[in-house]
Amino acid sequence: MTLDRLLDDFEAGQISREKLKQELLRQSFIETGNAKIDPLREWRTGGPEVVYCPGKTPDQVASIFDHLNRCNGRVLGTKAGQDHYEAVSRVAEARFDPVSGLLSIGAAPEKPAGRVAVVSAGTSDLPVAEEAAGTAEFLGSRVDRHFDCGVAGIHRLFSVMDDLGAASVIIAVAGMEGALPSVVGGLVRPPIVAVPTSVGYGANFQGLSALLTMMNSCAPGVGAVNIDNGFGAGYLAHKINMSALGKEDG
Amino acid sequence: MTLDRLLDDFEAGQISREKLKQELLRQSFIETGNAKIDPLREWRTGGPEVVYCPGKTPDQVASIFDHLNRCNGRVLGTKAGQDHYEAVSRVAEARFDPVSGLLSIGAAPEKPAGRVAVVSAGTSDLPVAEEAAGTAEFLGSRVDRHFDCGVAGIHRLFSVMDDLGAASVIIAVAGMEGALPSVVGGLVRPPIVAVPTSVGYGANFQGLSALLTMMNSCAPGVGAVNIDNGFGAGYLAHKINMSALGKEDG
Amino acid sequence: MTLDRLLDDFEAGQISREKLKQELLRQSFIETGNAKIDPLREWRTGGPEVVYCPGKTPDQVASIFDHLNRCNGRVLGTKAGQDHYEAVSRVAEARFDPVSGLLSIGAAPEKPAGRVAVVSAGTSDLPVAEEAAGTAEFLGSRVDRHFDCGVAGIHRLFSVMDDLGAASVIIAVAGMEGALPSVVGGLVRPPIVAVPTSVGYGANFQGLSALLTMMNSCAPGVGAVNIDNGFGAGYLAHKINMSALGKEDG
Amino acid sequence: MTLDRLLDDFEAGQISREKLKQELLRQSFIETGNAKIDPLREWRTGGPEVVYCPGKTPDQVASIFDHLNRCNGRVLGTKAGQDHYEAVSRVAEARFDPVSGLLSIGAAPEKPAGRVAVVSAGTSDLPVAEEAAGTAEFLGSRVDRHFDCGVAGIHRLFSVMDDLGAASVIIAVAGMEGALPSVVGGLVRPPIVAVPTSVGYGANFQGLSALLTMMNSCAPGVGAVNIDNGFGAGYLAHKINMSALGKEDG
Amino acid sequence: MTLDRLLDDFEAGQISREKLKQELLRQSFIETGNAKIDPLREWRTGGPEVVYCPGKTPDQVASIFDHLNRCNGRVLGTKAGQDHYEAVSRVAEARFDPVSGLLSIGAAPEKPAGRVAVVSAGTSDLPVAEEAAGTAEFLGSRVDRHFDCGVAGIHRLFSVMDDLGAASVIIAVAGMEGALPSVVGGLVRPPIVAVPTSVGYGANFQGLSALLTMMNSCAPGVGAVNIDNGFGAGYLAHKINMSALGKEDG
Amino acid sequence: MTLDRLLDDFEAGQISREKLKQELLRQSFIETGNAKIDPLREWRTGGPEVVYCPGKTPDQVASIFDHLNRCNGRVLGTKAGQDHYEAVSRVAEARFDPVSGLLSIGAAPEKPAGRVAVVSAGTSDLPVAEEAAGTAEFLGSRVDRHFDCGVAGIHRLFSVMDDLGAASVIIAVAGMEGALPSVVGGLVRPPIVAVPTSVGYGANFQGLSALLTMMNSCAPGVGAVNIDNGFGAGYLAHKINMSALGKEDG
Amino acid sequence: MTLDRLLDDFEAGQISREKLKQELLRQSFIETGNAKIDPLREWRTGGPEVVYCPGKTPDQVASIFDHLNRCNGRVLGTKAGQDHYEAVSRVAEARFDPVSGLLSIGAAPEKPAGRVAVVSAGTSDLPVAEEAAGTAEFLGSRVDRHFDCGVAGIHRLFSVMDDLGAASVIIAVAGMEGALPSVVGGLVRPPIVAVPTSVGYGANFQGLSALLTMMNSCAPGVGAVNIDNGFGAGYLAHKINMSALGKEDG
Amino acid sequence: MTLDRLLDDFEAGQISREKLKQELLRQSFIETGNAKIDPLREWRTGGPEVVYCPGKTPDQVASIFDHLNRCNGRVLGTKAGQDHYEAVSRVAEARFDPVSGLLSIGAAPEKPAGRVAVVSAGTSDLPVAEEAAGTAEFLGSRVDRHFDCGVAGIHRLFSVMDDLGAASVIIAVAGMEGALPSVVGGLVRPPIVAVPTSVGYGANFQGLSALLTMMNSCAPGVGAVNIDNGFGAGYLAHKINMSALGKEDG
Repeated sequence: MTLDRLLDDFEAGQISREKLKQELLRQSFIETGNAKIDPLREWRTGGPEVVYCPGKTPDQVASIFDHLNRCNGRVLGTKAGQDHYEAVSRVAEARFDPVSGLLSIGAAPEKPAGRVAVVSAGTSDLPVAEEAAGTAEFLGSRVDRHFDCGVAGIHRLFSVMDDLGAASVIIAVAGMEGALPSVVGGLVRPPIVAVPTSVGYGANFQGLSALLTMMNSCAPGVGAVNIDNGFGAGYLAHKINMSALGKEDG
Repeated sequence: MTLDRLLDDFEAGQISREKLKQELLRQSFIETGNAKIDPLREWRTGGPEVVYCPGKTPDQVASIFDHLNRCNGRVLGTKAGQDHYEAVSRVAEARFDPVSGLLSIGAAPEKPAGRVAVVSAGTSDLPVAEEAAGTAEFLGSRVDRHFDCGVAGIHRLFSVMDDLGAASVIIAVAGMEGALPSVVGGLVRPPIVAVPTSVGYGANFQGLSALLTMMNSCAPGVGAVNIDNGFGAGYLAHKINMSALGKEDG
Repeated sequence: MTLDRLLDDFEAGQISREKLKQELLRQSFIETGNAKIDPLREWRTGGPEVVYCPGKTPDQVASIFDHLNRCNGRVLGTKAGQDHYEAVSRVAEARFDPVSGLLSIGAAPEKPAGRVAVVSAGTSDLPVAEEAAGTAEFLGSRVDRHFDCGVAGIHRLFSVMDDLGAASVIIAVAGMEGALPSVVGGLVRPPIVAVPTSVGYGANFQGLSALLTMMNSCAPGVGAVNIDNGFGAGYLAHKINMSALGKEDG
Repeated sequence: MTLDRLLDDFEAGQISREKLKQELLRQSFIETGNAKIDPLREWRTGGPEVVYCPGKTPDQVASIFDHLNRCNGRVLGTKAGQDHYEAVSRVAEARFDPVSGLLSIGAAPEKPAGRVAVVSAGTSDLPVAEEAAGTAEFLGSRVDRHFDCGVAGIHRLFSVMDDLGAASVIIAVAGMEGALPSVVGGLVRPPIVAVPTSVGYGANFQGLSALLTMMNSCAPGVGAVNIDNGFGAGYLAHKINMSALGKEDG
Repeated sequence: MTLDRLLDDFEAGQISREKLKQELLRQSFIETGNAKIDPLREWRTGGPEVVYCPGKTPDQVASIFDHLNRCNGRVLGTKAGQDHYEAVSRVAEARFDPVSGLLSIGAAPEKPAGRVAVVSAGTSDLPVAEEAAGTAEFLGSRVDRHFDCGVAGIHRLFSVMDDLGAASVIIAVAGMEGALPSVVGGLVRPPIVAVPTSVGYGANFQGLSALLTMMNSCAPGVGAVNIDNGFGAGYLAHKINMSALGKEDG
Repeated sequence: MTLDRLLDDFEAGQISREKLKQELLRQSFIETGNAKIDPLREWRTGGPEVVYCPGKTPDQVASIFDHLNRCNGRVLGTKAGQDHYEAVSRVAEARFDPVSGLLSIGAAPEKPAGRVAVVSAGTSDLPVAEEAAGTAEFLGSRVDRHFDCGVAGIHRLFSVMDDLGAASVIIAVAGMEGALPSVVGGLVRPPIVAVPTSVGYGANFQGLSALLTMMNSCAPGVGAVNIDNGFGAGYLAHKINMSALGKEDG
Repeated sequence: MTLDRLLDDFEAGQISREKLKQELLRQSFIETGNAKIDPLREWRTGGPEVVYCPGKTPDQVASIFDHLNRCNGRVLGTKAGQDHYEAVSRVAEARFDPVSGLLSIGAAPEKPAGRVAVVSAGTSDLPVAEEAAGTAEFLGSRVDRHFDCGVAGIHRLFSVMDDLGAASVIIAVAGMEGALPSVVGGLVRPPIVAVPTSVGYGANFQGLSALLTMMNSCAPGVGAVNIDNGFGAGYLAHKINMSALGKEDG
Repeated sequence: MTLDRLLDDFEAGQISREKLKQELLRQSFIETGNAKIDPLREWRTGGPEVVYCPGKTPDQVASIFDHLNRCNGRVLGTKAGQDHYEAVSRVAEARFDPVSGLLSIGAAPEKPAGRVAVVSAGTSDLPVAEEAAGTAEFLGSRVDRHFDCGVAGIHRLFSVMDDLGAASVIIAVAGMEGALPSVVGGLVRPPIVAVPTSVGYGANFQGLSALLTMMNSCAPGVGAVNIDNGFGAGYLAHKINMSALGKEDG
């Protein structure tokens, strides 16, 4: 039974106040042995608990999905593999995007609200950009995608600048030298969430180069998340977007 | 003549469309020899050009303040010293906060709007926290300050959690291990701008420790700016705040 | 013949003082060609020689286990693989936990004494947390396990705080930003052994992020071991636990 | 009024239960504007709040000392300078050790209990070693000092090995290559708190060399604190020592 | 006697072939005790020996200037201080630019040839940009300066793009995130010498951020020199410029 | 239709000025969904868009090659694998060099002009050296190869010094300590493009050692590209070479 | 024909002085296309050219071995694999030690002279220690091996101290914290060549920890080679050994 | 009374065997409170205890000098300042070289033996080179100095190559890219002690660049000491030199 269902039942008088309290208390976390699942996180922080799949066995992931699904009716996992997908599919109907590694159960909110623009520097940044876009969409934001707009051919970026300027928040994804957020930040109004990627080699040092660039942006209005952390960017952008809409998440 | 004044005059019919265009063109930047001042940045990006004072002589800073003041009527400088303050004071009436290093000309917008909560971990983080708070205030946000709320005495943090949850955006400032944004991020709804500081010693490596912590936050909804970059945090928070209010900046 | 057996025989008058001395001298180390085995280490330092398996061939590991087993009657190996297990199984009955990589011969001390609490941040930290717990158990401590208590849902941590406060020593295991030991250290009395793990990606830099966090803990009372070094944490915690019990180890 | 005095009064019937509760509540932290003082930390964690002086003005430090002194009757500050000492001296009688930078108010506990051995590698490590020793003494441990026992003349270390072996816990302080804890750890029983120092130059990288050595100790039973963090080592050692004595701190 | 004078004399028959050979041999280097001066370097490599002043005493610098001046008639020193200038002034008429730290003796080549464009990101980069410009001018290139053209206000850069495109070689100087060379490299034809500067703070890590950016430029046609190495950039640009002119240097 | 063909047709009167403008505008970039192809980059910057293959699927690479081939008639890809080659072969006749990873379509310019000398330190540096050489050749430079000339047997380097001195530009490729460019730079006139390689192990840190060496060259006239970036070196050298020839590229 | 054979023939009058000169000239290096073989290196530096096998194809290695064998009659390769061995075996009778990766052709010098002691810390350091020992033996030194003498059981080290003290030079091999050379250096007279290994994990950072330790040894008389560079240590030790014997190498 | 004097007296029958033993035992180290002086180190390791002065007060240094002087009759201190010199001068006649920071008491051995060649790259490396030379001379080696022979003008190096080749051991000192030892190592026979210096700026990273270069030397026969550690190089070279002479040190 999901929490919404629980509350519906309470409003409909089908369960007592005492029963509701007990259920809420019981659900404050669910002990599964290896994991303590946190189903009320969405009530508390405006965003659900999301499952980081690497380092977890397929069975562990499937068990966590199953528990969260029973509470919330929808679940998101990140950086999942085909084996995680198959295990989760045995407990519920799931969707899996092998490019971004996003694995999910449940429908998106019916009326996606707000607007997040995702702009990326190169085609090789696609998996991270898609992880950002898919996460924001799962959470309920509308997302516009503008890929392969790196500064080496800056007119490609200018061609989408009006769309970027009209968004509530921009996610800028770039590897190699990671200059994209600085350039965008000097040109448009919305706040920018910068995502360094590990695309590159040599003195890129697995994304350190792009990360430092984004930390040192000469254009203000830029905040960065971890290297390759498309999920974190999508999540933060959705929070900003919801804040911009003056409404509670979810 | 400030840009607002220029446009007032145009609306009042006191200058022609051709004159306006010429002025705008002329003002697209102002060449001063060592600097190209960008007075229209606020129109373009929603935030004014702000003067980074280190590495500039007092005379250079004063000259840039003077030019920007003529265009915009108000100017902000960061990480300024007493010598910068004295030089600027010779060209206009200026305010200087030696704790944060903020140096400014001009009044704050009349009706500060929106709400930014600044929470910091320790008393030694005060200069950076004040730089963040002062920047957001200069730009037009209302700011609540909650200092010395580090996780070593986490009940201090809990005592301000309701205030944090009610803000449009939170700025979390911490040195040493920098765990504050992660803990806050797991408890409240607003998006969080994390600022690592260089407070600490040894394996702190001048703030690297706190920076990496904020990059790796297990609680999503957190974006980070550069070490000790209170200005950048205040600027980004103001942008998010303005976005949340559904209005144009400034 | 184990050392205990040797001393039993001496006490029983079955071997002479001269014979005992010779044996002890001979056993001060055992030359096996590639290794110099140190069977008296437990007498000297209160903890046995433990075999670090990576970089050793299965045959080398089996030979060292065989020699230590003859002296001490029980042996522990760390970060072992299935191939090490199979080779050791050919010389003695062995136990192997593929999650933690612990490989052992011999029974645990009959009356486990003292109490070590192992608390970990996430499910992906399980292998390291189990290595810590299993090591302390092998050495003779009683161990309580509290897994998946990361600060992103801090009420999960609070739910086990009383148990943590009642332990002689706490082992806190965390990857990503590694904030767990700081938060625990601000709330309870026991000394804390912190274990950074390499769980995470990007600016985690294979555990460097968590390591630096633990080095810079704003809550004192925390000492750290190497990244992913569950064994070292379990060993140190057992030493503290034994010290707390006012008795000699083993 | 200190907390002990408060409780004495309550036991003596001089204040009511309601009054006691109010006082405790009020004291849960004391807001001083720039700082939130945490006087009950010692009750909660077994160790008092200790004031990290760098980055705080002398007036800020004096104010915090004053508040903590009123509550607890004794206060410790670390890495203080002469100016901090002078400011604190204006609010209470204080002691200052310029070698270690320890600044304190109030007498040590009457009957120091337990035994911490501090062993250091070289004369240049003295300030950090003294910070460790002085902290443990302030908290109530008895401390034996063994300085200049570095491994370059290992017989110096052997001359004190019996004393080290008899302690409840050893603090090993070393700069340069920092090998001291590894060597000690292979020879004696007590748990070891390792403190890397920044003594050295070149590839020492301000203590990184010694820190990494202590992280990678081939002898187990070693936990490390931050570079130059004598305070943290003394604090952790005191906690282990108290645990060894089977009694509550303070 | 300079080398040119020596050869003039030889061509004029005023010295013999044997005398010339002896002189050349003698001049292959000049031993001054602490230094081996290399007056023929310009013949060999197309650029003169240039004196790196830091770490040398004023007397050492003056002595080296004196010897090189006798051979070549002109000398350049870098990163010099006022004290170096005063010492050199005692042996010859010298020029000193305190902004760039360039110290020189002798006139520039009469007919400066070729064209180097120096473009810098911010006013704080001025000392390095001037070091680059002054070096190229000393060596004989014509130099155009375009300062404060950083990407945060990219229209400032576009305003000088035609001038940049018309140069034989571009020197792009930038600190903070150092994105300038990438953006320029995507827009114009000339080869680019990129100079990272240490302008910035925090995660700038004394110029590492800008250096890595320039190493990872997504726009090809960019080669980088050391952080703050304006001299090296000016030298390399002059070599490319001379190569472009199809003539021998100097 | 390639751009040359387009212009031929325009000159021949077969298409109108309006049609030409439309085509150029349309070709300013070509949106393929995941990529924005930039066919006019060669007109703008003197060098074509080159495809960085890692992180792109074979189908993505083939699609980009196909589009660029239709515009320009020739395409270059770097660090390609056998699978990229096979996919591209299905859309056009392609050449692939498995040593350097260069994958190309189309003939080299008919009359290769200018002269680039590639000198490498060791046989293991061959793949990077060939990438540099092959790139410069593809772009239209004549290339001389001098491999295995490392400074450990410096007479091997001296044997090719005359050839190096006669080039317009030198590419110096070296791993391990990367001293080759410094030594060459002290001996000959042409500008030097230095390429660090990741050849080596241990404290080589995947090429960092050679990179830092080249950044700190005591011989000026050296600019560096990224570790293993033979492509970037070949591209920059070609630009310098073209500049030296006083002609437009391509 | 080897060089010794060549000189024998010349001494025996079987070839003329002119023929000898020609041969020497021709052999100054041998161009094989991808490699410039340096057969006279042993004459010049007292040690032969040794083939670093990683990054070279089996055919390249075999070709270089073949050429060097023709000149010198014996060849050594390092870090070779089974595939290199098989390729070389097709051109000459070769020996291969899979533990150390040493691959060689030709007999050791008949009367090995001098004495090198190799002492290593742990069994996992065996491959590097054997590479050092095997290299010194190939070059003509007598080698004593003392393995698994790490400082965690320091009596194992003391048991071999007399042997170490009697050597001309000591090679000390250690991973993890790498303290072995410091301890040895404080106890015996011979110069020490220290070899850090990459044995360990976590904050070992692939041998960086041990490298820094050896750089910062508080006991002087220690020089270090690269991480895992057993070859370099064996080579340097042989040079010191030869120098100690007052004779020319080889 | 020095140890030599003690032994002279014993040989002359002026003190008894018992008295000698007592004295030796007493002298095994001398406890001075903050330091444990090790006067027998020279007997044990062939080199005396040398005093590292930084971080020690002038009084501490003077006290240690006084004790060592009483035992050995001569003392060496490194990286000393003028204040250390003045304090030591109050206890004995001392010599101080402000360039190298060497501070000493007592005459050099009467008949300096053996030959160490010190070669340095630039004039700015002089302090470190002199520290190396002065240390070896103090210990009893004859030293030849060859300064300013960097690879940027490699003929300067060739001019001294015969002298280098004739030494028992070479010390090669270099900052910036630190290529000198590699080049020398490819040309001459003696073993080489490499000393990286912190001369340089930017990506030199305080000597890291030169250190890594020397770790990765493609020419074998090179061992490195710490950055700026001229003392360690002189000490190691003296040990090698003594070994080469087949005699005991000192």
